[in-house]
Amino acid sequence: MFPTVIKLIPFIEAIGIIAFCISGFIRAQQRKFDAIGVFIIGFVTAFGGGTLRDILLDRRPFYWVEHQNYVIAIFICSLLGGTLMDFTHRVFSRRAMLVADAMGLGLFTITSTAVALEAGMPYFVASMLGMIGAAFGGVIRDILCGDTPLLLTDSSPYASCAFAGSWIYIGLRHLHANDVLSLLIASGVIVFLRLISIKLKWEVPKGF
Amino acid sequence: MFPTVIKLIPFIEAIGIIAFCISGFIRAQQRKFDAIGVFIIGFVTAFGGGTLRDILLDRRPFYWVEHQNYVIAIFICSLLGGTLMDFTHRVFSRRAMLVADAMGLGLFTITSTAVALEAGMPYFVASMLGMIGAAFGGVIRDILCGDTPLLLTDSSPYASCAFAGSWIYIGLRHLHANDVLSLLIASGVIVFLRLISIKLKWEVPKGF
Amino acid sequence: MFPTVIKLIPFIEAIGIIAFCISGFIRAQQRKFDAIGVFIIGFVTAFGGGTLRDILLDRRPFYWVEHQNYVIAIFICSLLGGTLMDFTHRVFSRRAMLVADAMGLGLFTITSTAVALEAGMPYFVASMLGMIGAAFGGVIRDILCGDTPLLLTDSSPYASCAFAGSWIYIGLRHLHANDVLSLLIASGVIVFLRLISIKLKWEVPKGF
Repeated sequence: MFPTVIKLIPFIEAIGIIAFCISGFIRAQQRKFDAIGVFIIGFVTAFGGGTLRDILLDRRPFYWVEHQNYVIAIFICSLLGGTLMDFTHRVFSRRAMLVADAMGLGLFTITSTAVALEAGMPYFVASMLGMIGAAFGGVIRDILCGDTPLLLTDSSPYASCAFAGSWIYIGLRHLHANDVLSLLIASGVIVFLRLISIKLKWEVPKGF
Repeated sequence: MFPTVIKLIPFIEAIGIIAFCISGFIRAQQRKFDAIGVFIIGFVTAFGGGTLRDILLDRRPFYWVEHQNYVIAIFICSLLGGTLMDFTHRVFSRRAMLVADAMGLGLFTITSTAVALEAGMPYFVASMLGMIGAAFGGVIRDILCGDTPLLLTDSSPYASCAFAGSWIYIGLRHLHANDVLSLLIASGVIVFLRLISIKLKWEVPKGF
Repeated sequence: MFPTVIKLIPFIEAIGIIAFCISGFIRAQQRKFDAIGVFIIGFVTAFGGGTLRDILLDRRPFYWVEHQNYVIAIFICSLLGGTLMDFTHRVFSRRAMLVADAMGLGLFTITSTAVALEAGMPYFVASMLGMIGAAFGGVIRDILCGDTPLLLTDSSPYASCAFAGSWIYIGLRHLHANDVLSLLIASGVIVFLRLISIKLKWEVPKGF
């Protein structure tokens, strides 16, 4: 079973990058940014979180330096902005976008947590970096667009799901569970938590 | 006398971190952010300036990676948000908060300046990094909250006090004065300047 | 001919830094920031883009650490804010400022692209870093001032000119053209494109 699943990871990764990038495109086009602005916002939404994580960890090369083709694809897509948005709206439902975004959140949280653990970070710091890697692309997108970050203003659980999942991964790693299995379980929990919390309209409490 | 004072430094440091963190909590709760948002803003206010300084100096590990317990404490406090704010308002007066913030400003400016000098920075750059390390946590807090940074809009001297103190420290170091004594004098000058400027409602001029 | 032109580069560089810095000063004074705020915004507009580029490339020392005198000059100018603005308005027309800014854009894009290529970046990433080094000082300025970045909202071509020029430079380097000649041609194209696009009121399309 495992080898098959591992082969799926680059595929899930691509889905996550595309979902994050499209969320950036949509925002940039709501703001009527030109093609270059759409490119910048799409790029930053997809890769900003991982880049901030790598700067904090002093880790190079960045993912987008090693996978330049993703950047070129985002650039071409941003030139096709209008056509692409029509296509996106026709082919992907809002629900499909939420699922794709949740898959990106799940996978990137766990890969970021893993990267932080490998860099020797203590557990709590690793869980924070997991959350930063997955969710701070959206924060940078919001700041560049002049909005207060959704992550802070929207009480629908997002960072909390990432946080919970990263601790499950840390727990499984601590128990020396199989690494791929741990990745799949923890990512799956994040996707599940995120989708169920949207469905049931859960809210993160304001604190006690 | 010195050994006693040195033992006090971690204590003053904790006071500064707590004061900065509470200023973040207050802002986040005014904005009605949820517990995760309160944590992010508290963390960034306390550690953002020092982290930016260390990124600029290419210096690792960060303070909060080495002192993970502070981060965990901030996380727990952010979960207790409401209760804690009630407690804070009852126990600490606004005046106590201003004094604690001034102590944080004083100590962090000088420790940041010292770190920059040890990294071989020239004097003017070291004084800038001293100011960045102490005052830019608040700038990042304000940007994340969608506000124009107080540091820029409020003409009550804040960065200027940090700047003045860092030059006193650089001067004393240049004269080969005792390091701890220099730290204490320069930090003390910053605390004094900051408090007297609030008391006397000094304003930084707009330039000539 | 070349040796003469090379000697001009530090001179053009200074013109670019001054133009960027003045654009920061103007913004900060519109906002009625005090002298320290004017300094911070001027500094960030002049050096923020190159600093972000160097952080992404993990490259030290920063330009402003090696050339501390520029920073001191900006500091003194910010203290002289009012007087200096009067002087600037009297001596430099809006047209002169646009030309100086275009020269800064042209030169800094190509030097940033060259730095990125020397750091082993692939071509597309190098062109992005060229654009970031030249244009992101203004983005950081706008974010600190609480504005949505002009680079994103203004559809007058700015990043696009930088982008086009960086590809000309990359093409010439790929063809093993003389390095200084490539720098001059590519920078010149950017200056020309930027000025002609202002003159003819070109706009970057919103995408197709």
